[in-house]
Amino acid sequence: MTVGFGDRLAAAFDAHGQLCVGIDPHGFLLEQWGLADTASGLREFGLRAVDAAAGAVGVVKPQVAFFERHGAAGYAVLEEVIAAARAAGLLVIADAKRGDVGSSVEAYAQAWLTPGAPLEADAMTICAYQGVGSLAAPIALAHDTGKGLFVLAATSNPESFALQRAVLGDGPGAGRTVAASIVEDVAAVNRERQDADSRREESSMGSIGIVLGATAKLGEYGIGLQQLSARPAAPVLAPGFGHQGARYEQLPELYGPAAPYVLVSASRSILAAGPSGIADAIRVQAAEVARWRG
Amino acid sequence: MTVGFGDRLAAAFDAHGQLCVGIDPHGFLLEQWGLADTASGLREFGLRAVDAAAGAVGVVKPQVAFFERHGAAGYAVLEEVIAAARAAGLLVIADAKRGDVGSSVEAYAQAWLTPGAPLEADAMTICAYQGVGSLAAPIALAHDTGKGLFVLAATSNPESFALQRAVLGDGPGAGRTVAASIVEDVAAVNRERQDADSRREESSMGSIGIVLGATAKLGEYGIGLQQLSARPAAPVLAPGFGHQGARYEQLPELYGPAAPYVLVSASRSILAAGPSGIADAIRVQAAEVARWRG
Repeated sequence: MTVGFGDRLAAAFDAHGQLCVGIDPHGFLLEQWGLADTASGLREFGLRAVDAAAGAVGVVKPQVAFFERHGAAGYAVLEEVIAAARAAGLLVIADAKRGDVGSSVEAYAQAWLTPGAPLEADAMTICAYQGVGSLAAPIALAHDTGKGLFVLAATSNPESFALQRAVLGDGPGAGRTVAASIVEDVAAVNRERQDADSRREESSMGSIGIVLGATAKLGEYGIGLQQLSARPAAPVLAPGFGHQGARYEQLPELYGPAAPYVLVSASRSILAAGPSGIADAIRVQAAEVARWRG
Repeated sequence: MTVGFGDRLAAAFDAHGQLCVGIDPHGFLLEQWGLADTASGLREFGLRAVDAAAGAVGVVKPQVAFFERHGAAGYAVLEEVIAAARAAGLLVIADAKRGDVGSSVEAYAQAWLTPGAPLEADAMTICAYQGVGSLAAPIALAHDTGKGLFVLAATSNPESFALQRAVLGDGPGAGRTVAASIVEDVAAVNRERQDADSRREESSMGSIGIVLGATAKLGEYGIGLQQLSARPAAPVLAPGFGHQGARYEQLPELYGPAAPYVLVSASRSILAAGPSGIADAIRVQAAEVARWRG
């Protein structure tokens, strides 16, 4: 029987803690690492980041945009980086933020979540601008293959606040904000899955997660921390630490009872340590993230 | 001086009318065309579609998801299909629906809009779930390079209605729906650009467009047709014709005074004609789209 992504992520948390290393080959970081802003520079950068992360954390998250920038050559490198990470025992979240409708969004899910596909990852980020209902095919595929999704809910950039706090007038989510309705829809998907699968032991986390930026004030979206921690909890992918301003010691304050389900994402603050410092930076930051658990 | 995408699109409308041929290599279409669901099947499908479209319409729109599904090999084919289309004088809209924040969304824009990039197209579709403000870098790049963007506003799938009709409480768009606020933000971008560029003759269309599905009832989003047609009008990319239910003769009824700025997208209804029938299907449908103009 396929082990669900939520259970695999929970095992990774137990073994390695909750830090996720972003693999974001920005032009300025490549320069700082002494690498060219070419597909081969990306390859060196990505494989070194994987080497430094392996054994020290459980999860890495390549930012797809920086690979797509180099076209097919960048994608060939991304295939190699993802495969190297998975071979090293890391879970890989493709930070792709894809979204579409019907057979198109299904094709995106097949691209990143089908076992044996060239870009096969363990989970991907996805956008529900066309409604969580538009993600039915990716959700079904994720469940069938033991993969995961992280649906954007409250992102960490200030330009997003007005849209993500807009209030629904129609449908079962009427009266909720956009972000809160996505959180609720994802929770319902995870509950249904748990109920449908009575053979399994109860999982602490579902396989469909949400993105909640650490700089977003959840109360202002009407997102309750108790709601987030109801089992099976949706894993929370949390950007916004480090460079964007949130600090690891704020985890309990920001996420309360949902803190054990938060995947703490850090990219720039780790990658800026350079090729000689990255392994130490990962160890130090993983220990900081672990500290709040006591 | 770089000619803006809005002006290039207006010229394409004058020369070839307003039909846009979607290049969507669905698995079932590949089978129907007698092609394998592999990168080389996609190549044959894409290049034949380009051949059939060249000279008959002004614009093609490859759906990126179906190429991404095949990883780097699919992207290599997409590079070739886009280049063939542009060499044949077609404008190419990469239907990518990318979206992110900061340097990541900038990297996506660089991927599709930078002259000389392997995936260089003339415009791309983009998602503003993180706010139109998050798209500042892609908008600036599009203007600098004479490229275009189409920002998702009201999409054609019913699962999207509740979110896209949610009402903003914060910011300058307070009281508007999500979709209407995106339409207004895009209109403001096009106006500012026109004002800033006093050397130019006034353009009928701006370079930043919107996606408004033909099956979406614009009044229910609070989107006014007069507002859509104010100069410089945002070009409207309109999926939802054919397979999804809208008919070409509804163009004046659906878009009113904005109908001259609508890029009418058709994919399945054309591609299902097969390799021997596609050229005729394009000619017939282009003539149908042209008919409403009288």
